[in-house]
Amino acid sequence: MPLPAEFHDLAKRVNNWGRWGADDEIGTLNLLAPEVVREAAATVRTGRRVPLALPLRQDGVQTGLIPGRINPLHTMTAINQEPFGPGTVATSDDAVTMGLQAGTHWDGLAHVSHSGRLYNGRPAASVTAHGGATALGIEKAPPIVSRGVLLDVARVRPGAAGQPGRLPAQHAVTPEDLDAAEELAGATVRSGDIVLVRTGQMGHYLAGDRDAYAFPSPGLSIRTPEWFHARDVAAVANDTLTFEIFPPEIDGLWMPVHALHLVEMGMIQGQNWNLEELAAVCAEEGRYVFFLAATAEPFVGGSGSPVAPVAVF
Amino acid sequence: MPLPAEFHDLAKRVNNWGRWGADDEIGTLNLLAPEVVREAAATVRTGRRVPLALPLRQDGVQTGLIPGRINPLHTMTAINQEPFGPGTVATSDDAVTMGLQAGTHWDGLAHVSHSGRLYNGRPAASVTAHGGATALGIEKAPPIVSRGVLLDVARVRPGAAGQPGRLPAQHAVTPEDLDAAEELAGATVRSGDIVLVRTGQMGHYLAGDRDAYAFPSPGLSIRTPEWFHARDVAAVANDTLTFEIFPPEIDGLWMPVHALHLVEMGMIQGQNWNLEELAAVCAEEGRYVFFLAATAEPFVGGSGSPVAPVAVF
Amino acid sequence: MPLPAEFHDLAKRVNNWGRWGADDEIGTLNLLAPEVVREAAATVRTGRRVPLALPLRQDGVQTGLIPGRINPLHTMTAINQEPFGPGTVATSDDAVTMGLQAGTHWDGLAHVSHSGRLYNGRPAASVTAHGGATALGIEKAPPIVSRGVLLDVARVRPGAAGQPGRLPAQHAVTPEDLDAAEELAGATVRSGDIVLVRTGQMGHYLAGDRDAYAFPSPGLSIRTPEWFHARDVAAVANDTLTFEIFPPEIDGLWMPVHALHLVEMGMIQGQNWNLEELAAVCAEEGRYVFFLAATAEPFVGGSGSPVAPVAVF
Amino acid sequence: MPLPAEFHDLAKRVNNWGRWGADDEIGTLNLLAPEVVREAAATVRTGRRVPLALPLRQDGVQTGLIPGRINPLHTMTAINQEPFGPGTVATSDDAVTMGLQAGTHWDGLAHVSHSGRLYNGRPAASVTAHGGATALGIEKAPPIVSRGVLLDVARVRPGAAGQPGRLPAQHAVTPEDLDAAEELAGATVRSGDIVLVRTGQMGHYLAGDRDAYAFPSPGLSIRTPEWFHARDVAAVANDTLTFEIFPPEIDGLWMPVHALHLVEMGMIQGQNWNLEELAAVCAEEGRYVFFLAATAEPFVGGSGSPVAPVAVF
Repeated sequence: MPLPAEFHDLAKRVNNWGRWGADDEIGTLNLLAPEVVREAAATVRTGRRVPLALPLRQDGVQTGLIPGRINPLHTMTAINQEPFGPGTVATSDDAVTMGLQAGTHWDGLAHVSHSGRLYNGRPAASVTAHGGATALGIEKAPPIVSRGVLLDVARVRPGAAGQPGRLPAQHAVTPEDLDAAEELAGATVRSGDIVLVRTGQMGHYLAGDRDAYAFPSPGLSIRTPEWFHARDVAAVANDTLTFEIFPPEIDGLWMPVHALHLVEMGMIQGQNWNLEELAAVCAEEGRYVFFLAATAEPFVGGSGSPVAPVAVF
Repeated sequence: MPLPAEFHDLAKRVNNWGRWGADDEIGTLNLLAPEVVREAAATVRTGRRVPLALPLRQDGVQTGLIPGRINPLHTMTAINQEPFGPGTVATSDDAVTMGLQAGTHWDGLAHVSHSGRLYNGRPAASVTAHGGATALGIEKAPPIVSRGVLLDVARVRPGAAGQPGRLPAQHAVTPEDLDAAEELAGATVRSGDIVLVRTGQMGHYLAGDRDAYAFPSPGLSIRTPEWFHARDVAAVANDTLTFEIFPPEIDGLWMPVHALHLVEMGMIQGQNWNLEELAAVCAEEGRYVFFLAATAEPFVGGSGSPVAPVAVF
Repeated sequence: MPLPAEFHDLAKRVNNWGRWGADDEIGTLNLLAPEVVREAAATVRTGRRVPLALPLRQDGVQTGLIPGRINPLHTMTAINQEPFGPGTVATSDDAVTMGLQAGTHWDGLAHVSHSGRLYNGRPAASVTAHGGATALGIEKAPPIVSRGVLLDVARVRPGAAGQPGRLPAQHAVTPEDLDAAEELAGATVRSGDIVLVRTGQMGHYLAGDRDAYAFPSPGLSIRTPEWFHARDVAAVANDTLTFEIFPPEIDGLWMPVHALHLVEMGMIQGQNWNLEELAAVCAEEGRYVFFLAATAEPFVGGSGSPVAPVAVF
Repeated sequence: MPLPAEFHDLAKRVNNWGRWGADDEIGTLNLLAPEVVREAAATVRTGRRVPLALPLRQDGVQTGLIPGRINPLHTMTAINQEPFGPGTVATSDDAVTMGLQAGTHWDGLAHVSHSGRLYNGRPAASVTAHGGATALGIEKAPPIVSRGVLLDVARVRPGAAGQPGRLPAQHAVTPEDLDAAEELAGATVRSGDIVLVRTGQMGHYLAGDRDAYAFPSPGLSIRTPEWFHARDVAAVANDTLTFEIFPPEIDGLWMPVHALHLVEMGMIQGQNWNLEELAAVCAEEGRYVFFLAATAEPFVGGSGSPVAPVAVF
């Protein structure tokens, strides 16, 4: 089934192809200009740090539904081994096998294509088995540090009965929701910001229910890419497995937000970010703006990368 | 062969066991106090960012000498797959197998033991095949952001003939070298700092010679842990595979710096950090102090972790 | 909880320690004498072949209950790549990550220990992170070819209502069951034979229900090792995940059959063998004795190995 | 560079497309008819077994030249763990990551394509990242047992000075070499046989020299596929990494034997088989014909598979 006209209309309105040159491979990360980074650092007042990554473990968020995206299998390759003889200093070493997008991660620009194209018109075929993403690989991303803004939609929108702080599964986060959360934040989202959208869905996983976390899931509406495009943000992350509402709002139109962000805008996306402690700290500190450090691991040819983001207040 | 008296003397002088309580699992990362982080952020003036991680790839720095510490094997698990039918949005996914300490990484506190003990007196046996590092795992580390100081020893010490900016392989970096580099930096290393020591050895790998990079290698002298202890730094990283000079200074005493830092002081160490661009930027900007973000990936039970460090000026 | 006296009594009666010398590492595989192999080959009459391995795939029999024993993750590392230039011969390559005991496999002798000991009195500590099973590793096993005998217990014992050909989950296969199946087989189990015990439990997995397959599960009773010991068989395999009845017959005595076979007798065990087609062929051919080829993959230090067994009639 | 006319001429002469139907996915393994298997079993006289697989280990035959084809990384996921509490039966478990064609293996029919086609005209594009070889996968192969014939070319052709029993690196094994070895064998290769061709190259690896083993390497000449086609053998294996002579005989024509065997004939190939002990046993027993069991591990979508072949005399 071809993508509907509605999708193509939205695509045109948010498209960034050519904006940073025909050879650009980093899209909206171009917005992380030195002055943006400098002003982000200037938001630091107390030095309080909040980690946003889930622990990497075999009982991570993956349930087996996405083939190949396996939770980290961590194994020891040496335990207190004495490589230089008995009584000498002993070492322990380890290895891991995991899906690059298994846990808290960034979707890179090569993660999604539509109509045979990746961001900036690159052919979808530039992703190969041998080289991975030979264009738009995650290793091309510059260091990701900027101003972070938490839009705590789960706080400004009533949850299901008995579940304050968690959007219902059928809730598509709309531009109006983002406006309301921005008002709560008391800050205006601006160019180069990294926006963190909290749905509260992570509560399911933290309570031990991976299946409920996975789907159905609240998430971004197809109408939100225009909101992010208008404010010219550098990246968006949230606390769900699917990022956008799932199942989708329009019957048969799957993953439209992925396609708009990654292919049209050239904007990386974060998923499975744990925003629970962050939300509590923001409420406690009375501020929703902070310094965010969230650099991707530079996997050559990676379609994405695990990330250990940190908010600094 | 038991560890010599000289080692035990040094061990006593730098030991931090009990300093942060009997249950402490993070050692000198306790020094990353809010005010330290705040002052670190205050060093940012231009917003210029410098990445310090090597790309993660099959032809990484590992040569096969350390069994199990394999370079990243990156594989695609899906390429432009249309999970919802022909003509829909297509996705590419990938997975990786790698040694946690294969590339640019942190040694966690469980990486090394001696005399049956890990940092803070934990039994070496707390590292198990099933659970990995059940104590002192890298997932216990808090977000790692602080003031970074580059001590460019390769710049202040003459290199081998024809190799300016690279220490000879037999050069053990001494406290005097650190003093000289500190003087060049025009800054005083202080509590909570993360010190980056440049030997220039990375030049071998960047020039395509992995074997020359691996060893023999310049690196820290057994006399430097006292220097770091006196200044109470939070962590130390450098641009070598072995971290300390290798082969070692004292015949038969292997990996003494590892043992002093990780076991006695409870101080994590960074290896395979690419400090070449950083050194150029420091020289150009005329400053060797910056904001450093280098949070570990939270592998549960990890004896270490890949890291993508960023210096912000 | 220490192992009960009942276990130790059985252990004494089936123990083979020292029988093939103090240094022996292959246990009952010593029984695969040339004349046994020769007579096994002599059973071939029609040349009909029956494969007994499950396909190796991500949706294999593992459900995540046994940490680390992951189903095969098969990934392509090259797809129609032309390593020597456009228009030349193209190659596709692949890699796999899997638990060695994830699918149809042999348990090696290092898989289980009790009271600090492996088979033949080897210390349990000879299994290490660095070297794996430094004693009794699966690579020590000689080629495994012998006479196979199918004991189709599922056929001679009534199944649950509506499930002919499948033992109820709470059915412990007893020596009397084996006698009855031997009578059906019209053959006498003898020294060096490899006995395949069919419970029919595999039907659950083949019907798509992994959880029902996993457990509760019928399996061998604690009374059967003596039966196998009396007949001096070389190995035993069946069509379950747990091999022995699970949960166990005696409250608090977990995995006694594993301990008796692997530790006391030094007899490898096969699990997750698909005996459904074999049972049909045996019934059709009117014979339950055949040539069996089931050599382990020689993983150095392996506590087990995948195997692709073949019965030849 | 397009494949030369000489290749296409040979291709026509050995082509088996359509011979076993338009849907066939196993090629010459169709020749393993029941009577072939029966007669193979009838060759067993003494019951002596000879294993032909190299141990699977980190220091296997791969040198890193073929990206992604990594030697087995074997790791313990549990060591003497007591899952049911202290004092109970303890288990050790392990996992592996490896290239499917890293060690002793079969090349499956999907391993090679040319001119956009796999065996039997299947499109090369049927190999995908998500599903692997969706046609011609190694899991389609039936149990591989047949008559094995050792053609000990290294014995009948003089080696380099001082290296009896090893062909020089520049030696392309010709039809005349195979004739001479067949005469030595005192047997006529016939339909359904599996032919093992010994070059002696494995001696390099067994002596610890992986680089010398890898290449340059003796191997099959482009003229041998016709020889195998004329005798209608089921499969061919040898004791080299490259299978065919490498660098190739005809400048710019890379991997022609792979293309003729896998694509044109639909005949799987074995590589890295250890034929040293086998050659000694054949010479000692005075016979070069035996029962061979070499079933592939059924990796779904695999372009090949590790195998642990066994010769039975």
